[in-house]
Amino acid sequence: MNLPAPHIFETQSKIAPNRLTATQALEALQDGRLSATDLVNACLQRIGERDGDVRAWLHLNPHALQRASDLDALPKEQRGKLHGLPIGIKDVFETKDMPTTYNSPNFHGHQPGQDAAVVDLLRTEGAIILGKTDTTEFAAAGRNAATGNPHDTGFSSGGSSAGSAASVADFHVPLSIGTQTGGSTIRPASFCGVYAFKPTFGMVSREGFKIYANSLDTVGWYGRSVADLALLAEVFGLTESIRPAPAGATLRIGMSLGPYGDCLQQESLDTLNVAADRMRKAGHEVVTVTFPADFAALDHHHRTILHREGAAAFRNLARRLGSELHDDFHHRVENRDGRSLTELRDAYDAAAEARRHFDAIAAELDAILVPSAPGFAPESRHPGDPVFNAMWTLLGVPCVNVPVFMPDKPLPIGVTLTGSRFSDPALLAAAKLVAPWIDCSPNHHT
Amino acid sequence: MNLPAPHIFETQSKIAPNRLTATQALEALQDGRLSATDLVNACLQRIGERDGDVRAWLHLNPHALQRASDLDALPKEQRGKLHGLPIGIKDVFETKDMPTTYNSPNFHGHQPGQDAAVVDLLRTEGAIILGKTDTTEFAAAGRNAATGNPHDTGFSSGGSSAGSAASVADFHVPLSIGTQTGGSTIRPASFCGVYAFKPTFGMVSREGFKIYANSLDTVGWYGRSVADLALLAEVFGLTESIRPAPAGATLRIGMSLGPYGDCLQQESLDTLNVAADRMRKAGHEVVTVTFPADFAALDHHHRTILHREGAAAFRNLARRLGSELHDDFHHRVENRDGRSLTELRDAYDAAAEARRHFDAIAAELDAILVPSAPGFAPESRHPGDPVFNAMWTLLGVPCVNVPVFMPDKPLPIGVTLTGSRFSDPALLAAAKLVAPWIDCSPNHHT
Repeated sequence: MNLPAPHIFETQSKIAPNRLTATQALEALQDGRLSATDLVNACLQRIGERDGDVRAWLHLNPHALQRASDLDALPKEQRGKLHGLPIGIKDVFETKDMPTTYNSPNFHGHQPGQDAAVVDLLRTEGAIILGKTDTTEFAAAGRNAATGNPHDTGFSSGGSSAGSAASVADFHVPLSIGTQTGGSTIRPASFCGVYAFKPTFGMVSREGFKIYANSLDTVGWYGRSVADLALLAEVFGLTESIRPAPAGATLRIGMSLGPYGDCLQQESLDTLNVAADRMRKAGHEVVTVTFPADFAALDHHHRTILHREGAAAFRNLARRLGSELHDDFHHRVENRDGRSLTELRDAYDAAAEARRHFDAIAAELDAILVPSAPGFAPESRHPGDPVFNAMWTLLGVPCVNVPVFMPDKPLPIGVTLTGSRFSDPALLAAAKLVAPWIDCSPNHHT
Repeated sequence: MNLPAPHIFETQSKIAPNRLTATQALEALQDGRLSATDLVNACLQRIGERDGDVRAWLHLNPHALQRASDLDALPKEQRGKLHGLPIGIKDVFETKDMPTTYNSPNFHGHQPGQDAAVVDLLRTEGAIILGKTDTTEFAAAGRNAATGNPHDTGFSSGGSSAGSAASVADFHVPLSIGTQTGGSTIRPASFCGVYAFKPTFGMVSREGFKIYANSLDTVGWYGRSVADLALLAEVFGLTESIRPAPAGATLRIGMSLGPYGDCLQQESLDTLNVAADRMRKAGHEVVTVTFPADFAALDHHHRTILHREGAAAFRNLARRLGSELHDDFHHRVENRDGRSLTELRDAYDAAAEARRHFDAIAAELDAILVPSAPGFAPESRHPGDPVFNAMWTLLGVPCVNVPVFMPDKPLPIGVTLTGSRFSDPALLAAAKLVAPWIDCSPNHHT
């Protein structure tokens, strides 16, 4: 089925609570127009209606309504920055009161009994952990998520953070947490038509989420507006920025297909050009950016690091579980692709050099517009190709997915805004300024 | 009290099982001369006699003897590579059947109910997790370990892996696991007079040990011979090497005080010179190595990364626990030293460049001899200064501590052999060849 773009609800006088953005809901919760109980009930009702088809969730928190009721009873001065907001957690993060299965048959019912660092922070700020969302096994390989695309469940919602992207796109929750090691946050956002943020590498603790590749694994998150992404960024401590936030209303935006333009399908190319045109019409400057030729090797370097670090990450499971563990993980542990340590060392060194080169380019720009995915969501449950995301993960730079709903197209598609390392608030500020022009919102184009 | 150097026992005809090295014990276990039960009993007896003074342990595994008995009953063909070996685990690693407290009052009795990746691997290979060893709080700051130096408990055993180093030095266990983010594996080894290994960064999974600094935290381990260090390296999958193992019996060894020679106390300088002289006498070539001038900034860069990454790591605890959490961690979360993100970015980039420069130097050498610590163990429980370890942690290069027992000195002191990244087996092979000449072993000097 086709769902209308989320922003059209913003113009309606009475919106179902589950369709509010996080910032809208927070405002309503704070001034007493909405209770956490009503919000959670609306979310659970939507999930009940939809999740038989969408299958975003692996586990729902049976204590969510009790938690909402407790939060509703809390005096105003004791309320946190996320007071009463229901949040979905990708099931690779530990949660003290729910199973953590990694969508792996080897961890059915696993309960570590402690919260991952981000889950702990979210709870401390008054969020309601509504449940655990489906994921590619270990956010890596093996079993795909069962989640369908909310816009047409015959299509994929992407991987690995499938359930987190779909749950926000389909109005089950205003916010959700995912991860990105290749393209696992941004690509599902592109396929499902939601906003997503992957911060600068290392700025948000990955404690308590399953390691796949130690130098790539990044916590990411989903929302239905840039303001929602910025809300979580603040909670996670992303308040400093090397690059200052845009000073004026007119931005200087770079644009590039990146080194893998040949992999782009027509719809992704069109979307990128439409996004650039719209920004130009809004008065922003859009200039073509060229990356150094050796950036073409970044995807290869990413894969070398991914597989060799993955070998370390899955060694214990491979040794203990033997053939019970999916062969994809034995593939990595045994280094069946024969990636040498010399290749690994060179990949690290090349990435470090490319980071400096990218920073020099990005220093002149408020953001750089690049593709989020090769094209629309693939059919079935295929997680999709991470080639347009992996290089940014390797470079460690912040990325925002801005959803685009093109006229007469059944599925959405996203574009990525990226920028300088350690300048997350500046990139979010730039995205906030240009996103309304890109995402086809009818109420912004008046 | 003064303990004799471990190796003098090797010449005795009948050695108490707990005094065997891991490789000696393994051989005896495999050919039936020793049972796991007898070995564990000997270790527990030693702990009973000594740990009231040394205080290496926070928790002993109540099921260790049952586990030993189960292993003794196992048919030979089902035995693992570490069959029957008791191992101590620094109490920052999760263990499914024991508390994991991080030596933090905030985690008293905490039981995550799952094993860290290395603990899982050790168990799968037939090791006996004998217990959890004391550590600086969160392997970072806050509360010091209560562990005393086994050679004189009025002195420190170093930090943060205090209990792991002391337990091996004092013959409680043949092997133990520690971590290193600054100098937390090598420095305690120097103070306590044991062998230790910190592998190339990223080669051993850090899953399930408390994150302090994501790009520095490294699993390390202790033994009473280089062969014991190599045994665990193999179990952890460190079997490949960019640099080939030494081809002949004569090695080419570099030697340097590093950029912080001014911080060396006389005993450390003497030990380094004695080690170099002994290697020369054994026929090895020892050449002076000079590092680029900008290596002098590596300790500063290390500390910038340590504190800024530490801010991300401790944010959730600081927010949730407030004043219940030691102020040292609030110091990091609040960035009270005012280290900017520009400094952080520059630290990452400078470290990446220094890695390449170091590799170019190390490529010509079988190993590089550098200090392990400024001098003897400090008094009381002070963890000591990591200045001679932190730069190697930042560079991610493998390091072996070789203990040196100098005549007429009450405390031991170590030297470090370091070498090329991703060449761990080659460095261990080099260390195996030169260590007998360095460590004063009477039975090696005949």
